[in-house]
Amino acid sequence: MNRIAGHYDNGLDRNPANYAPLTPLTFLERAASVHPNVWAVIHGEVRYSWSQTYARCRRLASALARSGIGRGDTVAVLAPNVPAIFEAHFAVPMAGAVLNAINVRSDPAIVAFMLEHGEAKIFIVDTEFGVLAKEAVSNLRAPPRIIALNEIVHPEGAAALAGEQDYEAFLDTGDPAFAWRVPEDEWDAISLNYTSGTTGHPKGVVYHHRGAHLLALGNTLAWNMGRHPVYLWTLPMFHCNGWCFPWTLAAVAGTSVCLRKVEPKPIFDAIADLGVTHLCGAPIVLSLLINASEADRRPLPRRVEVMTAAAPPPAAILQAMEKDGFHVTHVYGLTEVYGPAVVCSWHDEWDELSPELKAQKKARQGVRYHVLDDLMIADPETMVPVPKDSETMGEVFMRGNVVMKGYLKNPEATREAFSGGWFHTGDLGVWHPDGYIEIKDRSKDIIISGGENISSIEVENVLYRHPSVLEAAVVARPDDKWGETPCAFVALKDAGKDTAPEDLIAFCRDEMAHYKVPKSVIFGPLPKTSTGKIQKRILRDRAKQLRAE
Amino acid sequence: MNRIAGHYDNGLDRNPANYAPLTPLTFLERAASVHPNVWAVIHGEVRYSWSQTYARCRRLASALARSGIGRGDTVAVLAPNVPAIFEAHFAVPMAGAVLNAINVRSDPAIVAFMLEHGEAKIFIVDTEFGVLAKEAVSNLRAPPRIIALNEIVHPEGAAALAGEQDYEAFLDTGDPAFAWRVPEDEWDAISLNYTSGTTGHPKGVVYHHRGAHLLALGNTLAWNMGRHPVYLWTLPMFHCNGWCFPWTLAAVAGTSVCLRKVEPKPIFDAIADLGVTHLCGAPIVLSLLINASEADRRPLPRRVEVMTAAAPPPAAILQAMEKDGFHVTHVYGLTEVYGPAVVCSWHDEWDELSPELKAQKKARQGVRYHVLDDLMIADPETMVPVPKDSETMGEVFMRGNVVMKGYLKNPEATREAFSGGWFHTGDLGVWHPDGYIEIKDRSKDIIISGGENISSIEVENVLYRHPSVLEAAVVARPDDKWGETPCAFVALKDAGKDTAPEDLIAFCRDEMAHYKVPKSVIFGPLPKTSTGKIQKRILRDRAKQLRAE
Repeated sequence: MNRIAGHYDNGLDRNPANYAPLTPLTFLERAASVHPNVWAVIHGEVRYSWSQTYARCRRLASALARSGIGRGDTVAVLAPNVPAIFEAHFAVPMAGAVLNAINVRSDPAIVAFMLEHGEAKIFIVDTEFGVLAKEAVSNLRAPPRIIALNEIVHPEGAAALAGEQDYEAFLDTGDPAFAWRVPEDEWDAISLNYTSGTTGHPKGVVYHHRGAHLLALGNTLAWNMGRHPVYLWTLPMFHCNGWCFPWTLAAVAGTSVCLRKVEPKPIFDAIADLGVTHLCGAPIVLSLLINASEADRRPLPRRVEVMTAAAPPPAAILQAMEKDGFHVTHVYGLTEVYGPAVVCSWHDEWDELSPELKAQKKARQGVRYHVLDDLMIADPETMVPVPKDSETMGEVFMRGNVVMKGYLKNPEATREAFSGGWFHTGDLGVWHPDGYIEIKDRSKDIIISGGENISSIEVENVLYRHPSVLEAAVVARPDDKWGETPCAFVALKDAGKDTAPEDLIAFCRDEMAHYKVPKSVIFGPLPKTSTGKIQKRILRDRAKQLRAE
Repeated sequence: MNRIAGHYDNGLDRNPANYAPLTPLTFLERAASVHPNVWAVIHGEVRYSWSQTYARCRRLASALARSGIGRGDTVAVLAPNVPAIFEAHFAVPMAGAVLNAINVRSDPAIVAFMLEHGEAKIFIVDTEFGVLAKEAVSNLRAPPRIIALNEIVHPEGAAALAGEQDYEAFLDTGDPAFAWRVPEDEWDAISLNYTSGTTGHPKGVVYHHRGAHLLALGNTLAWNMGRHPVYLWTLPMFHCNGWCFPWTLAAVAGTSVCLRKVEPKPIFDAIADLGVTHLCGAPIVLSLLINASEADRRPLPRRVEVMTAAAPPPAAILQAMEKDGFHVTHVYGLTEVYGPAVVCSWHDEWDELSPELKAQKKARQGVRYHVLDDLMIADPETMVPVPKDSETMGEVFMRGNVVMKGYLKNPEATREAFSGGWFHTGDLGVWHPDGYIEIKDRSKDIIISGGENISSIEVENVLYRHPSVLEAAVVARPDDKWGETPCAFVALKDAGKDTAPEDLIAFCRDEMAHYKVPKSVIFGPLPKTSTGKIQKRILRDRAKQLRAE
């Protein structure tokens, strides 16, 4: 197989006519030139066509370049789903730079860590998060230049950002005919996404242009998107670059309907008034929809496709969704694989099953995306695939072009994540006889609350800082609204016997983003293995029972 | 822009976990594992599911490997649209080798040239073309080993191939669990397609795995293919690998309905009985459908999508097609760009136009495929783009990942084709203000008859071999049935004054494939420029008038 190929390798090399780096940026140029008058972005009264969006992106890229931003520089964004963050997905890489979209729910110390670790030079901040941004940059030795997105009137945030350059004024300094270029190498970084991971410090996951191009196309193959879908942004664009959907929407010349806040009424209004056809979201978005009040509801003018991840949609929710006219596709992925890389690809014959069996099928994470090259459940020690018997547990492994470049400035974590030539997801599951995977247990420590990853170790570290705490272990507790909430099991020191659960919760609220704060704190000795390791599995079972009670 | 990227380039290299060569072969593995029971191939009574097709492809790949076939070796196929040629599209590259699918309408000398030039080691031959194959290999110094496809009873062909290895028996020597591997480099050749081009000898266009993967996905984006399309093979798979649709169908887990002969009745039967949703074809296929007799027709159970290329569909044909329930998408491409690389992407607002204006819009070749990186109409000398004024003629240029590796063993033609960093199509057209291109004149010399390219120079060369011929020029004459037919203008020598047109036609029939033979021969002096060059444009006008008469 490795012989010299001879004439097929001779004089048939790459040249500018037959090779171009893969990048999602060319989708934007195509959407603007082929469908210039189709709406690209709708946000309240604001509407931009694809030609307008392209011009705005070129302006922004040009303004960034004129500000000295170039290849390998980082531009951070702290904003909800508004047009500017959509534009940044194109404009930042068009300037050769790397987009770091930051979770708006992060606390200031984490934002500061990301800005410093990612070496952001420019920081585009929505006024609503002006206070958070200012607090984050206040202690940085080399704070980034702030561009203020004054889209809404937010007095406190505006006051914090007073004197900073206005986003629209910044765009005005740019050239709408800016001669941007595709990257010289498709392996060049396009974005940086911090994941809370299982250890304390966030890890910076680096995406490249090749992977972003491929996952953008992979989304169209995994989901029935059709011509000019109208996509509602219920999934934050700061999560894995909105699962690469900004780039997908450019490929299919679809319309992005932006939503600053995910609430039932604007969602039903957008579906009824703007013809929304597709939306993505964590299970909390599904709950929101089926539990909406009659006042907030509007009839669906057509079936709406919903893609969901993070936790399998329960049968009751699926049935309620379908009754309401939504059709749910279940996907699975991680920040490290650009968002969704596994899809529960539906078989027509499953339509005939009972609702319960249908939900059982749909609760499975499924099979690899077309653009993920390989997926397996294997023994984490030996990396030997487990039998496809629906029973033997193993770790989920993936490999292919939609696996990250690696973790920024973290060679050890990168090496570990890729050891043995596969990406180690840390998630545990089983393999069914038909090749569909099902996650049985998330990586031990992560709690997913309202679609946000919470590192239990991070919460534990805070608890350990309280003077009364002897030992602490934080696990997920099932929650009807949030999917999961953090539940802390704490052994107190003798000297701290008077401490109440409320005291620890108040302590945590001062030390971390509020969504990470344990909702319940249970005192008592922690179960341990013979070698002294805390048995989180037992604690998870206890937390589950708390729910049942 | 070229500064050192620093930490984004540091320790974030390719490795087996995050990089895989792009290849369409992984689509087959996915279709077989995700949708094992969906039909992959239907051919009369024969049906193979995707898992069966995958097993057959692994058998064939294994049998080829055991026969000594490996990287860079050529396997030629001479067959109509039967399951074996579909299987070869996967199995040959799974063995690391290069597929050369040969036009069954070629004459023996051309087949011999291709086999010799491409250095085919194995030659899979359908019995129907046994005589042609045997004649072609009879004079080769190193004839390939023949594998005989005895799918039908064809006494003459079977006699010619008597004693050769049978295809099914050959498969039986292979391992259905063969551990094939993706190519080590996505730039590796996957197929070889000879084009008649404008000069005498066919040129061997080499495709690579990367381009085949991308065009396969590009087809799904350009065309509304949905889930599990049922695709009818009216387009020969030996034309640009069936425009890469074998690989596309694996990506979408669709069903290939094979047809040995393109005739109206089996087409309507397949649509009515097998639920065909999509088909491709030259305009002759469209004519065949709308001119079908009542006896051959069946009502369409649903709208059927038709992709057509080679010549713009005339308004009358489009209207008739739509009336019959077909929906036509117009694409444009060349062998050098894997088939279609330009699509007349439809705008919803054009639905409101009159049938004539609609046809005018649809007659335009359109805009680049998503996977073609750039398209322009430019001055062929200066390569400066022409204005988008619908009037200024220029040459069509393309560049990107779906442009061939180059011409096999033909560095000069490769260099010419790619000069200036663009692929020179040789086609002339205009650019409309909305960015859609329209071909006004095909590359001067090519005649497209029934979807087949005929090189006028090749026909002229034969005519010149007749003792009575002084000068000959062959141009296209419009033809209602075939699109075009070759029309020869001939100046006779004094000594040949008694030669009749019929004599030259008979002479040609002995010397070339019958479809290339001029249907009309006109005697007289040839118009020339001041520098003595024959003015083919004037002859084309005369040929057009012949039709009007």
